Amino acid sequence: MSRHLQLTENGKLKHFLSIEGLDKALLTEILDTAESFAGISEHQVKKVPLLRGKTIVNLFFENSTRTRTTFELAATRLSADVLNINIATSATSKGESLLDTIRNLEAMHVDMFVVRHALSGAAHFIAQHTAPHISVINAGDGQHAHPTQAMLDMFTIRQHKKHFEGLKVAIVGDILHSRVARSQILALNTLGVSEVRVIAPKTLLPAHVRSMGVIPLHDMDAGLKDVDVIIMLRLQKERMNSAFLPSESEFFRCYGLTEAKLALAKPDAIVMHPGPINRGVEIASSVADGSQSVILQQVSNGIAVRMAVMTMTMGSRGGMQ
Amino acid sequence: MSRHLQLTENGKLKHFLSIEGLDKALLTEILDTAESFAGISEHQVKKVPLLRGKTIVNLFFENSTRTRTTFELAATRLSADVLNINIATSATSKGESLLDTIRNLEAMHVDMFVVRHALSGAAHFIAQHTAPHISVINAGDGQHAHPTQAMLDMFTIRQHKKHFEGLKVAIVGDILHSRVARSQILALNTLGVSEVRVIAPKTLLPAHVRSMGVIPLHDMDAGLKDVDVIIMLRLQKERMNSAFLPSESEFFRCYGLTEAKLALAKPDAIVMHPGPINRGVEIASSVADGSQSVILQQVSNGIAVRMAVMTMTMGSRGGMQ
Amino acid sequence: MSRHLQLTENGKLKHFLSIEGLDKALLTEILDTAESFAGISEHQVKKVPLLRGKTIVNLFFENSTRTRTTFELAATRLSADVLNINIATSATSKGESLLDTIRNLEAMHVDMFVVRHALSGAAHFIAQHTAPHISVINAGDGQHAHPTQAMLDMFTIRQHKKHFEGLKVAIVGDILHSRVARSQILALNTLGVSEVRVIAPKTLLPAHVRSMGVIPLHDMDAGLKDVDVIIMLRLQKERMNSAFLPSESEFFRCYGLTEAKLALAKPDAIVMHPGPINRGVEIASSVADGSQSVILQQVSNGIAVRMAVMTMTMGSRGGMQ
Repeated sequence: MSRHLQLTENGKLKHFLSIEGLDKALLTEILDTAESFAGISEHQVKKVPLLRGKTIVNLFFENSTRTRTTFELAATRLSADVLNINIATSATSKGESLLDTIRNLEAMHVDMFVVRHALSGAAHFIAQHTAPHISVINAGDGQHAHPTQAMLDMFTIRQHKKHFEGLKVAIVGDILHSRVARSQILALNTLGVSEVRVIAPKTLLPAHVRSMGVIPLHDMDAGLKDVDVIIMLRLQKERMNSAFLPSESEFFRCYGLTEAKLALAKPDAIVMHPGPINRGVEIASSVADGSQSVILQQVSNGIAVRMAVMTMTMGSRGGMQ
Repeated sequence: MSRHLQLTENGKLKHFLSIEGLDKALLTEILDTAESFAGISEHQVKKVPLLRGKTIVNLFFENSTRTRTTFELAATRLSADVLNINIATSATSKGESLLDTIRNLEAMHVDMFVVRHALSGAAHFIAQHTAPHISVINAGDGQHAHPTQAMLDMFTIRQHKKHFEGLKVAIVGDILHSRVARSQILALNTLGVSEVRVIAPKTLLPAHVRSMGVIPLHDMDAGLKDVDVIIMLRLQKERMNSAFLPSESEFFRCYGLTEAKLALAKPDAIVMHPGPINRGVEIASSVADGSQSVILQQVSNGIAVRMAVMTMTMGSRGGMQ
Repeated sequence: MSRHLQLTENGKLKHFLSIEGLDKALLTEILDTAESFAGISEHQVKKVPLLRGKTIVNLFFENSTRTRTTFELAATRLSADVLNINIATSATSKGESLLDTIRNLEAMHVDMFVVRHALSGAAHFIAQHTAPHISVINAGDGQHAHPTQAMLDMFTIRQHKKHFEGLKVAIVGDILHSRVARSQILALNTLGVSEVRVIAPKTLLPAHVRSMGVIPLHDMDAGLKDVDVIIMLRLQKERMNSAFLPSESEFFRCYGLTEAKLALAKPDAIVMHPGPINRGVEIASSVADGSQSVILQQVSNGIAVRMAVMTMTMGSRGGMQ
């Protein structure tokens, strides 16, 4: 159903809600389109007129300055007009249903909703109910998906490894609660890596995790052995000292990425993290700032990937508007 | 005095503060100008350069995401630069008088204030004291006026009924506290409808309501009989269960718009509401979403009407800048 | 070190962090550049394309609507894209270090940070650690510096007095806690005024104030005698009734600027204040609104000075981009 909802009759991207249901060709098209945008942010004039006169709404039901910023920059560099609506802090939205909020914004002739919501499925729900000319991009919904994050990760991997075939990738940390991990696993498997390992204590792994096409491991040393890519997840500190997790120092000892542990991976392995990083909790500063870290490249690539998804869903690939 | 303040020596609109004092010709000019803008929001490139290089300040002393959004979109589609200032949340404004705030913004060479304020008369006060080149638009002041809302309602009525002559209009709900109703009544009478009825319990009608040129009614069935237009007002929930109002269900039973009550109006009657709607309180969902509802068209028309008022007060009608 | 950090190898302005270390020629260049921008805000189209396609980040760790607004307008009138980030209210920034925040924004290919921070030295710290292509402007750091405020004051003085040579300037109020006063004193002395007097109770003067090149005075009547320029400082009300200060009325009696006290200065003396003013606390309304007051001209000049500093640090003087 995700496939059906996300694609037009001609198989073009209409909404970008989830990696689920998208095939390798389409994910590759996103990466190729992003590549064509990657240079723009380094130009003297960082703008192209592809979405001029379009209105893009950052509809954030959950506060996230970082994610909002990357979407705002992507839209601005495409020359779109951006409207930031923070429903969490909006008094007027009280008592109005989500659907009524959407209907009202539609009536203002907006063209795109970039949706962040604490509930899984919120972006799908909006895409199912919005007007036909509007595109919806999921900027993170509950514990479900964060597909633009996954695609910027894929972009970064391809940048360094050229191909996905044959790659061994380890994802380390709180898999259970991570929408980022869920989207990454789907994208990695669709793009054809040879092995996805998830490394976490039992309490932070979903019950039937093998069915996602991954190899679960509880021992980090074994897990990192010979991998090409290490993806560290952010530890949500509010989960610390709960039933899920021991102390920060205990977590770091078992699952923190240190130089010693990094040495177990391939010599040219890259280290990734969706940010913001907790130094000394899930990753040592020397690794985060080290030569194998591509964490800041992920941020740069995030702008290009979001520009790609925005233009593709709006039917503006190749400036054919 | 409102007329004197709102118009230039040549009778052109300078500020838009209130319907009071504006004649039929001028209100009609606003509607005609809005009509010329109505198509722009459906263009591929939703922008005209009429106010390029102008600085429009959304000066909101009262939070209202919805109203701020419509003015921001209207300004953006006219290519103006928008500055959002939320005085309610601004720490620096503490202790500074309203006049000093205005003087400072004037000194920054802004061109327009869109003012929302909890006190009646705030927009008038600013218009009286601001620099000659600046225009002021009232985006709602206390219980006094909300003239752009009234004009988008008139636009919507004309869209469906072609003429105002001969129309019977019913306004239902909390007339006493409603700046929207006050502005609507003035506009409807100026534009020459044949009858304006206000329908509410005694506690929610002003004391000398007949002097406003309306027929007060307490019985909704009688009130809706044969009307062409039904305007439902939003019930301010904070007034519920006070001296003014019985319970929500009791209010809905007496003054909520149901399909049965709607059947008392003319068969082609339209149903309006300024939003956001309280489903099941002042209006049944089946009516709000029904074929006679034009509630979302009101929202669309709001952008066009605000573009009209912005260009007219800035002397940019017809792109003659 | 400030000089070294602020200038390129060719002696051009790279960052604008402090008046310290900048020579008379460079301050004069800022004033001359600002003069070329002063007319733009009075044009029909208040925009020049000098910074089109550049991304300027208002990075405010301390809330200040007024200062943020002037920088936003300056950037907008240079056609730059502005990103407002209010770290004080940003939940996502929790736990992320200042340096990680900067690194992430750099990775998004922004071009300038306008920094406001409660800690002295924050803007310097960012300038020291940021990427080579990024410029940093200090919009106020702790009790250290507020150099754009000082330069708009210098601009206003030159506008009225033509030359700095021979001028006597009095700064009145809480010198001890004022970053504005600190920057003003440096600028006035660098530009060659003949005398800078600071007038305040002992509790509000720094310990070794004479070493800053000023004459400290506790008696306002003696201090204002024959001066050309009077700069009143804003009294931070939260310091009132503390160990530093007597009551408001007592302060006004001793150090408030009244018409009687103003009469002690030269007949053509100008009255300045960085705003927002506390009427009846540090300045009488009749003086603030009187013919010798240039307080609102300071605000206007603030836009031009910030446009100058933005283009100079970005290497865009004279549109030579």
